[in-house]
Amino acid sequence: MTDAESSARREAILDAALEVFAEVGYARATIKAIARRAGIKSPALLYWYFPGKADLMRGVIARIMPPVAPEADLSALTAQPIALTLRLVAAALLTAYQRPPLVNAFKVILAELLYKQDENIDVLMAGPGAVLGVLRRCFEAAVERGELRPHNIEVSMRMFIGSLIIYILGTVVVPVLGDGLPTTDEYITALISQLLDGLHAEKE
Amino acid sequence: MTDAESSARREAILDAALEVFAEVGYARATIKAIARRAGIKSPALLYWYFPGKADLMRGVIARIMPPVAPEADLSALTAQPIALTLRLVAAALLTAYQRPPLVNAFKVILAELLYKQDENIDVLMAGPGAVLGVLRRCFEAAVERGELRPHNIEVSMRMFIGSLIIYILGTVVVPVLGDGLPTTDEYITALISQLLDGLHAEKE
Repeated sequence: MTDAESSARREAILDAALEVFAEVGYARATIKAIARRAGIKSPALLYWYFPGKADLMRGVIARIMPPVAPEADLSALTAQPIALTLRLVAAALLTAYQRPPLVNAFKVILAELLYKQDENIDVLMAGPGAVLGVLRRCFEAAVERGELRPHNIEVSMRMFIGSLIIYILGTVVVPVLGDGLPTTDEYITALISQLLDGLHAEKE
Repeated sequence: MTDAESSARREAILDAALEVFAEVGYARATIKAIARRAGIKSPALLYWYFPGKADLMRGVIARIMPPVAPEADLSALTAQPIALTLRLVAAALLTAYQRPPLVNAFKVILAELLYKQDENIDVLMAGPGAVLGVLRRCFEAAVERGELRPHNIEVSMRMFIGSLIIYILGTVVVPVLGDGLPTTDEYITALISQLLDGLHAEKE
């Protein structure tokens, strides 16, 4: 198998994994079902690409959110202006959640998380947990180099993520709450400036 | 029946309604089950206090979030400094969601909303929809009287609500995501100052 074929199969497996996660949730998805969906005869072959279900979830999340991929270059991300990082993360998240399989995955996994966190701990730690970790380090770096004033980072990073979750809820998940919402681009621009305007170092 | 007795019975019915909503969700809750839980022999008597299920939900929500109650004095709320209003709303929401029946109601109803919005439209409009409406008017009033600079209000009010939802998710619903979160009081104080510091009129 050539590198290109191997890479195409890897992508096909991740597509299949996202579809199966979207249909039955993470906890109930089986490697067998994902292999079948990807057109792979033997689950053993799938294991060659992804040793376990958690690796599949990490692969899916890394495609949606490149900044939190295990192989991502965090030092480059923390070194650039925080406004750029926030725009990158916001655009990746909000664009991803316009796609139907991901909206369904969001619904199924959120509903599961409300009751069965233990079974979904991989998703939590590879997804929301990893995003929080990356944001924390980016805000810390911005304060360290004097770009932002010292402030409560646990709050500002959650203001940012919470604003994105509310946007996803109000657009693709519960549209009746999206009344008055601006476009994705306008929302991201306003969110970043309204969040950072209060945190810039020169305010001190 | 004295006024005090009548008022006590009204409260008992609302307690019962919250418990039943928390157990089976809004859509599956019946007036009969709520009457039974409240120790009322006939559902007909319950109708005397609350003509329908939507009125029960509005009553429950009005107890949790007095600012959005149908009988609330909105003009007083919009006239006071926006920081005060935000503190009031945040404290009401975050305190309410420390109580177990409400945490369960939040889970059940959120899970339902993900799939069956039509059946839960009363909850949406009496709860989150009403809060968004009140916040919109308070931000508009703050801009009109020059307390805040002109800005995208749809974004700022959702930054505020999104930050509270994330706090609830990270404390009582999915604690594994609450790592590093400050106390409720610290969170509210930091959230309001970080949000409003970027929006004050003198910044223009």
